[in-house]
Amino acid sequence: MSLDLTGDVVALTTALCDIPSVSGDEQAIADVVEGALRALPHLEVLRDGDAVVARTALGRPARVVLAGHLDTVPIKDNLPVTIKDDILYGRGTVDMKGGVAVMLTIAASLPEPRHDLTFVFYDHEEVASRLNGLGRLVRTHPDWLAGDFAILGEPSNASVEGGCQGTMRIQITVPGVAAHSARSWRGVNAIHGVGAVLDLLRAYEPRQPVVDGLRYREGLNAVKVEGGIAGNVIPDECRIWINYRFAPDRDGAQAEAHLRELFAGFEIEVQDLAPGARPGLDKPAAREFVEAVGGVVEAKLGWTDVARFAQLGIPAVNYGPGDPLLAHTDHEHCPAQDIRDSLAKLLKWLG
Amino acid sequence: MSLDLTGDVVALTTALCDIPSVSGDEQAIADVVEGALRALPHLEVLRDGDAVVARTALGRPARVVLAGHLDTVPIKDNLPVTIKDDILYGRGTVDMKGGVAVMLTIAASLPEPRHDLTFVFYDHEEVASRLNGLGRLVRTHPDWLAGDFAILGEPSNASVEGGCQGTMRIQITVPGVAAHSARSWRGVNAIHGVGAVLDLLRAYEPRQPVVDGLRYREGLNAVKVEGGIAGNVIPDECRIWINYRFAPDRDGAQAEAHLRELFAGFEIEVQDLAPGARPGLDKPAAREFVEAVGGVVEAKLGWTDVARFAQLGIPAVNYGPGDPLLAHTDHEHCPAQDIRDSLAKLLKWLG
Repeated sequence: MSLDLTGDVVALTTALCDIPSVSGDEQAIADVVEGALRALPHLEVLRDGDAVVARTALGRPARVVLAGHLDTVPIKDNLPVTIKDDILYGRGTVDMKGGVAVMLTIAASLPEPRHDLTFVFYDHEEVASRLNGLGRLVRTHPDWLAGDFAILGEPSNASVEGGCQGTMRIQITVPGVAAHSARSWRGVNAIHGVGAVLDLLRAYEPRQPVVDGLRYREGLNAVKVEGGIAGNVIPDECRIWINYRFAPDRDGAQAEAHLRELFAGFEIEVQDLAPGARPGLDKPAAREFVEAVGGVVEAKLGWTDVARFAQLGIPAVNYGPGDPLLAHTDHEHCPAQDIRDSLAKLLKWLG
Repeated sequence: MSLDLTGDVVALTTALCDIPSVSGDEQAIADVVEGALRALPHLEVLRDGDAVVARTALGRPARVVLAGHLDTVPIKDNLPVTIKDDILYGRGTVDMKGGVAVMLTIAASLPEPRHDLTFVFYDHEEVASRLNGLGRLVRTHPDWLAGDFAILGEPSNASVEGGCQGTMRIQITVPGVAAHSARSWRGVNAIHGVGAVLDLLRAYEPRQPVVDGLRYREGLNAVKVEGGIAGNVIPDECRIWINYRFAPDRDGAQAEAHLRELFAGFEIEVQDLAPGARPGLDKPAAREFVEAVGGVVEAKLGWTDVARFAQLGIPAVNYGPGDPLLAHTDHEHCPAQDIRDSLAKLLKWLG
């Protein structure tokens, strides 16, 4: 089969949704996307696994990267797409084949965009981070992703969410001394010892820094606690896991240093650390983009794939059609007008 | 086979140990114990399952109950008993066939004791409390256990441990409001909420009351804590289990009222409540006993089967040959002299 990239973006969205592409099973959709892009003479097309990259080479002073994933969460009797009252119902309509359709349409209809463009369509976004196709490209082909500014087409109600906060997870192990609970004074209660960690968490005042004009909001929270082996034993160990969400003015090393200072004296193990991404709204291409789409710009608080661009030093924002709260739901649906509006605004900016 | 209750108490201990009687498999030993007791015309003998009760009916003003369990923990290549340097090695030598041999010897050799005597040999002590043979007798034949004072022949290095503390276990459930940890302020962290429970535990000063002349020592400890469902979710529930060990001047209802007052405002579930036992050292029979055995008397801090007598209003102490720290070990062993000394002291008191 082949895709028509020059027709109605809503019809293209429907066609893309109707190619099942649950994570791990993206080959069919990657093949048709690759085929459609290779038919466009103004684009260089590259392929890595089930990721497809296409780019112009016009020698423009700035390059914008538009990225979206091809996979979806599992289908729940919600394909093929049905359309009622100009609303598309079905898996992928929100997350994120509407965004993919917008990018493909731009790729086909703007042979001479204002900025050089790189389109990135990737696999394995809805599963474990280590499988993520964009992460794979960052590791294996960072040159394919080069650019001055990136837009991730994840659903954001067509408003702009800038950058993203980092996330870090540490485990603190509080030791004790085991004893029979009938003679508790012979032991040291590790669960009681965790009280001192909770004291620090309860007294903690998270920062709300402004970065590149956007206000972020940090958080420091216990997300798991586990201790005790039997109802009559003073526990000799209690473990508590803490999640730190940090604004993109701190890198991973600074975030870790902050927690090591806060929890000085405790045994800390860093289990997970993914730095955030600056929104880059101080860059001309980004300012232009925000003016063109005219949306409200807010800080992105959760971690998203935009941070993978930050690893390459590329500021990035989230911008795409659809309500993110409907993503992954069985009744996933997106107004066709959202998709048309996103396309129109991006065309206006890039045309 | 039959047992000789009139010979050497150490030989009798060896004979009892060499009848395997792991919990649930006590029929053989109960049969020979019952047979040996039925051969004694001054005793009335009763049987319930694998528990055997024998008692005098001399019309004495006071009745003393002597109790011990017939079962052992599993055998670990440590039977038959070996004797070296007058020390008995093998399963049951400490816990507690030495104590059983002492009681059987008293039963046979004192047809006219100073106090009426009831001997209780029971099953299933080393397994789940609901199976305990003494507990079964308390429920089904409390009249068989009637008395003014009870001695449980568990190993206590032949010193007297009086009464026992009660034990109570509660679960406190602290609620929260779930949220994504990237927007933690939208939730309420239940693990942080447990900090208030830990504050109370860390500030708690346990009582050390004197009861019937013995100093007890209470304890209030978290023994388990559990909360959190995922690394990116503010937990909406955290559960903490607390063990209260309380002196026998408080009954179960008072212990519960104390915790409900201390943790007022928290959601409390009582999961386990076993009141303790007063040592009863104010009773003449008990005072006589302590003088006769001349041992150091200390408060029993752990919960033991003496508390089952307390349920019937009978004060009780722990007194028996052997080092309790060797109970259940593969190299369980008991000096023969411990067994002879215990017997001699009890005979002197009861003769």
